[in-house]
Amino acid sequence: MCVMTFAQQALWGGTQVVSPEIHGNNTVTFRLKAPKAVKVQITGDFLPTQKFSTPFGEVDGPGVADLTEGKDGIWEYTTNPLKPELYGYSFIVDGLKSTDPSNVYLIRDVATLTNVFIIGGDRADLYKVNKVPHGTVSRIWYNSPTLGMERRMTVYTPAGYETSGKRYPVFYLLHGMGGDEEAWISLGRTAQILDNLIAKGKAKPMIVVMTNGNAAQEAAPGESSLGMVTPTMQLPKTMEGTFESAFPDVVKFVDNNYRTIKSKSDRAIAGLSMGGFHSMHISKQYPDLFNYVGLFSAAIIPNKDVTSPVYQDLEGKLKVQFSKKPALYWIAIGKTDFLYKANEDFRKLLDEKGYKYTYYETGEGHIWKNWRIYLTEFTPQLFK
Amino acid sequence: MCVMTFAQQALWGGTQVVSPEIHGNNTVTFRLKAPKAVKVQITGDFLPTQKFSTPFGEVDGPGVADLTEGKDGIWEYTTNPLKPELYGYSFIVDGLKSTDPSNVYLIRDVATLTNVFIIGGDRADLYKVNKVPHGTVSRIWYNSPTLGMERRMTVYTPAGYETSGKRYPVFYLLHGMGGDEEAWISLGRTAQILDNLIAKGKAKPMIVVMTNGNAAQEAAPGESSLGMVTPTMQLPKTMEGTFESAFPDVVKFVDNNYRTIKSKSDRAIAGLSMGGFHSMHISKQYPDLFNYVGLFSAAIIPNKDVTSPVYQDLEGKLKVQFSKKPALYWIAIGKTDFLYKANEDFRKLLDEKGYKYTYYETGEGHIWKNWRIYLTEFTPQLFK
Repeated sequence: MCVMTFAQQALWGGTQVVSPEIHGNNTVTFRLKAPKAVKVQITGDFLPTQKFSTPFGEVDGPGVADLTEGKDGIWEYTTNPLKPELYGYSFIVDGLKSTDPSNVYLIRDVATLTNVFIIGGDRADLYKVNKVPHGTVSRIWYNSPTLGMERRMTVYTPAGYETSGKRYPVFYLLHGMGGDEEAWISLGRTAQILDNLIAKGKAKPMIVVMTNGNAAQEAAPGESSLGMVTPTMQLPKTMEGTFESAFPDVVKFVDNNYRTIKSKSDRAIAGLSMGGFHSMHISKQYPDLFNYVGLFSAAIIPNKDVTSPVYQDLEGKLKVQFSKKPALYWIAIGKTDFLYKANEDFRKLLDEKGYKYTYYETGEGHIWKNWRIYLTEFTPQLFK
Repeated sequence: MCVMTFAQQALWGGTQVVSPEIHGNNTVTFRLKAPKAVKVQITGDFLPTQKFSTPFGEVDGPGVADLTEGKDGIWEYTTNPLKPELYGYSFIVDGLKSTDPSNVYLIRDVATLTNVFIIGGDRADLYKVNKVPHGTVSRIWYNSPTLGMERRMTVYTPAGYETSGKRYPVFYLLHGMGGDEEAWISLGRTAQILDNLIAKGKAKPMIVVMTNGNAAQEAAPGESSLGMVTPTMQLPKTMEGTFESAFPDVVKFVDNNYRTIKSKSDRAIAGLSMGGFHSMHISKQYPDLFNYVGLFSAAIIPNKDVTSPVYQDLEGKLKVQFSKKPALYWIAIGKTDFLYKANEDFRKLLDEKGYKYTYYETGEGHIWKNWRIYLTEFTPQLFK
């Protein structure tokens, strides 16, 4: 393929446009050369939100702003000063949503690619690659006898792992519906957050295992023999007990292939949305496996049509789990999350029973901004 | 960030367009919903080439074809039957080059993102993820005392590596100008090619180390503390001897961190373009390190302003290297490559001296299609 020629064109083909340009005061200028366009807009999560309707009801979505055409057909928009955060945006050129051709940084969420940039400072410094020792990120395949499949996972091992000879605790980190074993390492900035927290002495060096929670899927889209299929949220076998039942295969593989500390006291499990639901059920189904449990915006929405034994006798299993006194049972959610009430109901149940948990509430809703915050808050509490 | 909302919009926001759609006869239909567009074109390397001028002279680049508008503002173009290959393309909407919003598969080459798809069959089946045992792909940082830097590399370890207890030969695989430690694993399809060749018994299980050959750069764009910078081909310290001088740091790290066979007979080095130049110089500078050498479209273009000792006494060093009889010295290039004459001159020098090498010539020029072919041809000859 002639991509080198594409690149040559891009590099040597006349005026280069810089976009996004982050200024010293944290305003950001976006530019697009589109001489024939009639209207160019930008949509991004740094703009005032607007309402979108979804099957889950109305949700707040990113707002839209107009770019202004300047000379040479270069359109431009400058934001107000932005707070530290990882932001996403797209252009809309005459109604057609487009990526920014000047910005090669894109992250996929389900079937959508969005340009990203980071405004540093405060917590967002944890999302940046800094001059600190870096862990290793591996994509490795494991055998799941329960699912009868070879499956792919992403594993973070902390800086020094290769030569230290030491054993490490393991944090199992699960994605949401439509996600896969790439979600936490890309949108979640897990490697950067762990590198930075460990370097600051705020988190213990640990292995982080990011599995694929879609029990029907071997690997992320494009990474299995299905080829370059279009990613979808509507996968079979996502919240009906299969993944939870097969989870011991994951733990066994990790314990056999990495220098882990093979005990409950050195295992944590957490997940976002569907992964929070999985974490809740896995941790109570196997009450001797995990001492630390994190539910991030957990999709605690039982489906009455599902008859998996995993979901039977919730209260009885919670009783066993909490009788063993987990070191941390951590529930986090955003105030406007469509799952807020489901989590409130679950907390009520725990309260009624006198089960000890820690609750952490943020603003906003069911968004990656919150899940990165939860990861930075949860991880320092592990394996102390 | 509200990318979940972006995704929700994309997934639930009305008619979905399928693009690209690969038909049974290997024709491919591309579609774009752009009701307001006046003209929609596609450019890709499966279309008849057109000429582009570059600083290296005129090169053949991907051609352009027009899409036709159908109902609901959906534009469409169907190719002739395509040969097996990994192809790249972009849309051009009213003059603006755009990615295909229906295709999440993009590969970055320097500063350009291009949509890709694979037509299977023949050699291109090696580029696909197949139902075979999969190796592990890791991004790991190493210390280079010579460069005074922590640097990132990509390492492929073959299926079974984690538990076999065996030692493996190592193939060092170097990228071209503007590339980095991501180039071979993305555009080069190295993991897929190695998985498939090893599964067929055509290549020995081996470790493949893909370094970053830009001596001024710690890591690929976006992966170092420089942040999300715009990738560029104009990096300092690329072909002036620094990377070659620091290469023993790489070998030392790999031998200390992986179960390698630590001998010349079990080490190979190859690279494309600038990486071919690096491989030529590294292999003669350290004549006891590599028994297998591959020059893929090597940029054998000595710069008279560069005075590095690495480039001094070329003939004397080649004499030493060839007196030790490398098991394989493999030179490959495409007929229309702008480096064809430089490689012809180098072969003449080897011929004059009676140094034994193997020559492999393909059609076309300085393109990834050729480099993937060379990888599939070179790798089966290693460590026999």
